Amino acid sequence: MTAGSAAMYYAMASLGHAQDSTYQGRISLTGEPTNGRRVLVLGAGLAGMTAALELRDAGYDVQVLEYREKAGGRCWTLRSGDTYTDIDGVTQNVDFEDGNYINPGPWRIPYNHHGVLDYCKRLGVRLEPFIQKNHNAYLHRSDAFGGEPQRFRHVATDYRGHVAELLAKATNQGMLDAEVTEADRETLINSLRTFGHLNDDNAYVESDRTSQYRGYAREAGGGRDGAPVPSEPMDFETLLQSDLWRWLSEAETTSHQNAIFQPVGGMDMIAQAFAREVDDLITYNARVISMIQNGDTVTVQYEDRENGGDPVEMTADWCVCTIPFSILGQMDHNLPSAKAQVVDTMYYEGAIKFGLEFNRRFWEEDDSIYGGITYTDLPISLISYPSTDYFSDGKGVLLGGYVWGANAYQFNAMQPDEAVRWAVEYGSRIHPQYPEEFSSGVCVSWHKVPWTLGCYGIWQDKERDYAGVVEMGPDDRIVLAGEHLSYLPAWMEGAILSSLDAIAQLHVRATDSGAGE
Amino acid sequence: MTAGSAAMYYAMASLGHAQDSTYQGRISLTGEPTNGRRVLVLGAGLAGMTAALELRDAGYDVQVLEYREKAGGRCWTLRSGDTYTDIDGVTQNVDFEDGNYINPGPWRIPYNHHGVLDYCKRLGVRLEPFIQKNHNAYLHRSDAFGGEPQRFRHVATDYRGHVAELLAKATNQGMLDAEVTEADRETLINSLRTFGHLNDDNAYVESDRTSQYRGYAREAGGGRDGAPVPSEPMDFETLLQSDLWRWLSEAETTSHQNAIFQPVGGMDMIAQAFAREVDDLITYNARVISMIQNGDTVTVQYEDRENGGDPVEMTADWCVCTIPFSILGQMDHNLPSAKAQVVDTMYYEGAIKFGLEFNRRFWEEDDSIYGGITYTDLPISLISYPSTDYFSDGKGVLLGGYVWGANAYQFNAMQPDEAVRWAVEYGSRIHPQYPEEFSSGVCVSWHKVPWTLGCYGIWQDKERDYAGVVEMGPDDRIVLAGEHLSYLPAWMEGAILSSLDAIAQLHVRATDSGAGE
Repeated sequence: MTAGSAAMYYAMASLGHAQDSTYQGRISLTGEPTNGRRVLVLGAGLAGMTAALELRDAGYDVQVLEYREKAGGRCWTLRSGDTYTDIDGVTQNVDFEDGNYINPGPWRIPYNHHGVLDYCKRLGVRLEPFIQKNHNAYLHRSDAFGGEPQRFRHVATDYRGHVAELLAKATNQGMLDAEVTEADRETLINSLRTFGHLNDDNAYVESDRTSQYRGYAREAGGGRDGAPVPSEPMDFETLLQSDLWRWLSEAETTSHQNAIFQPVGGMDMIAQAFAREVDDLITYNARVISMIQNGDTVTVQYEDRENGGDPVEMTADWCVCTIPFSILGQMDHNLPSAKAQVVDTMYYEGAIKFGLEFNRRFWEEDDSIYGGITYTDLPISLISYPSTDYFSDGKGVLLGGYVWGANAYQFNAMQPDEAVRWAVEYGSRIHPQYPEEFSSGVCVSWHKVPWTLGCYGIWQDKERDYAGVVEMGPDDRIVLAGEHLSYLPAWMEGAILSSLDAIAQLHVRATDSGAGE
Repeated sequence: MTAGSAAMYYAMASLGHAQDSTYQGRISLTGEPTNGRRVLVLGAGLAGMTAALELRDAGYDVQVLEYREKAGGRCWTLRSGDTYTDIDGVTQNVDFEDGNYINPGPWRIPYNHHGVLDYCKRLGVRLEPFIQKNHNAYLHRSDAFGGEPQRFRHVATDYRGHVAELLAKATNQGMLDAEVTEADRETLINSLRTFGHLNDDNAYVESDRTSQYRGYAREAGGGRDGAPVPSEPMDFETLLQSDLWRWLSEAETTSHQNAIFQPVGGMDMIAQAFAREVDDLITYNARVISMIQNGDTVTVQYEDRENGGDPVEMTADWCVCTIPFSILGQMDHNLPSAKAQVVDTMYYEGAIKFGLEFNRRFWEEDDSIYGGITYTDLPISLISYPSTDYFSDGKGVLLGGYVWGANAYQFNAMQPDEAVRWAVEYGSRIHPQYPEEFSSGVCVSWHKVPWTLGCYGIWQDKERDYAGVVEMGPDDRIVLAGEHLSYLPAWMEGAILSSLDAIAQLHVRATDSGAGE
């Protein structure tokens, strides 16, 4: 190892979570770049702006080229007055009430995405809790319960209760004597009674106890008629056959567990905060058409999307390329062939999101749903209720659908306005208030987003190819970064951590005397 | 039924949750009070202020007598500069940083407490999500895992996984053929695979899959070394014997499910909002010493706690008494004997809460715990992390203990400063940062709170006595209200719903011609 390389990467912070995180606190790039200090960053998304911010702070001369008219990339929020034109040339004008918004891309920040959270703190982005799980939201299948949506709390409590009852019975009847020691059997049954809210006979039944978890048929009150009325659990067979149990774990990965956050005012508050730092380094409306490394330099050509004219050529000592492979594959470049092959074969997921504005927050006023997600087998997949401005009057915006896979193709075949009409039609099967309350909508299909042509990158063979692509080769002047070059694909954290590793590699090369390697 | 009585109670609102709630929207007391319009309200807690607000709006002449120097009762927040003197005469001076606070009484508002939520909206109280459940908080027993706190996500995911594995095994081996139809068996096993994150062999094992839920040993990152390292589940026997499963359902009653709220800035924002409406009706520092109903009137005597002097006597046509039975039982009153007996026998729970301020938010910075609750078998019972000002610098205040039962007696025998020292000592076994970071603390023992002598009322025989106490008898000029007269004891919702029913009864009597009943 050469001088600065080991000591330099990260200031080992006093962060207590450091042991299980790959983010080790603010990056510290010490030492002077002696092998060239000019860096071209391609793309002003979070990966690009992280690189620009940190490299400039480390003494580099940084320039950023960005395709769009503003920074942020997929860290993007649509608000009233915004327009968006897709690759079909269809323009949507967002007509939401002031203050309302939809995040077509990332929309949540898990508690363990330490990189994003740290930059939010450094850059002054205010965060508020995102409500992921809501027991009062619905689970819905068209072929279950006659198409009537069921409350999550009913399905979750009943499933757990029935499972606990069955296992307690099997244990009690000696069926599991080979599996569970005698000493553990009583503890197991006690625990199942707690876990499943079973009665003293280990049965899951209608009771005050179970109603405390699944909800009462009539809630407790005060004064006369204050006594609550218990609710009747679903029988297990109905519940099993309904298939609604499929969604019970949706909110329970560490990426979705409480507390999970969102920026106050929209996800692009993060993009705007980064842009405030590095705006002076960014050339907007610059469509990069080639990226060629040649010995000690990198040469990039771009077209000015606004003013046309001949391609502009820029040369630098180093390049951090955050352009998605879906776009990079269409450009001229001379990346080593192993990397080029991955660029060419990476598939981009084509998720679709709907932002639907309604005249009032009927989900709160009528259904007592404050934030959280309803899941359905309809092509919209889910409805997510806003985790902000609870109890407010005026219009509110739902995430009216978040669609992948085959359902995405169906919507992709439509114009946005037709897709929005279908999202409203589907949603009305869960919320009958939809047709009367619908105000306006917007639909973003990521396969049609000009600057990414997809939502996030999927590797053909990540285990085989990953290391070779993220590593800067000895002859490379270009280092690649972005969510696609991480184990947190589609997450902003992946973009930031990838970028930090990329610039750490670049800095080793730029500060290295060249001897000893 | 007489004229207005049926139609009058509540304006049947268009609230969609009306069918299962006992709160039917804003109360509508129509018709003129013809049988006396002077009402004395005893107590300016939420029950008293609700009564005062609504009765004045309905045309009554309302006066409120309050023991304290300010309104709110148990809806109470302690902030920097506040002092509090308990019945032992011990005064605590709260020395928190500006903006920090602790709620010694109620601290959360469930999504289905429609009454509280509606008054918050009417009165302009801003609400924010309260984080109840946090998978990254701890479960702790002194005798489990050598006293090392365990992450909730480890215990919850592993318990569920092992339970699912056991039941899948029993089902697969034909042990449950009598309980589960053949058609359901495969569905059950499929569902258990989803529910418990089992592998294709229905086993709960170390894997990428299970690590997504319980957390990785090393989290996913970007660039080189981005691949996550799976974590190893605990074996079931260790988990069962640890007893940590006891707390897995703590946050899962409908009173604790997402979304659950708190006022921005402290719970007494609700008290302050009510007080803004009815402050002109309230006489503060008035210690009521007698309440006598006599034919058509009620006579109340109170002492001026500030200026001493002879008792002041007030007479009214009606009285809404929200004084806790723990206090009422010590006053002169002539309530009917059946009611008086309940007043005398109601026991008040003696919970204790600790507010501990620390020099920094180490639970966030070191442990990545943002809101939520850690449970322990130590006498402090739990530690709750603040659901506000996440990521902020400066000092932060924990709920450093919330204690009932036998543990409460232990702390009650101490002076507040000694109790706080013990809360810090206990907490340090979970968070070793405690001793170094501790700044100041406050301890409120509800048995020592002068205006309640307890936390909430517990009935000797609620089923037998409840109806007779909440019902206004034909000769009564006094109606009783408060959380103790509800099926939501200790909750603000219980106080408000009790009060609304009380004033509805009073209004029937006051507007009734007396004929026909």
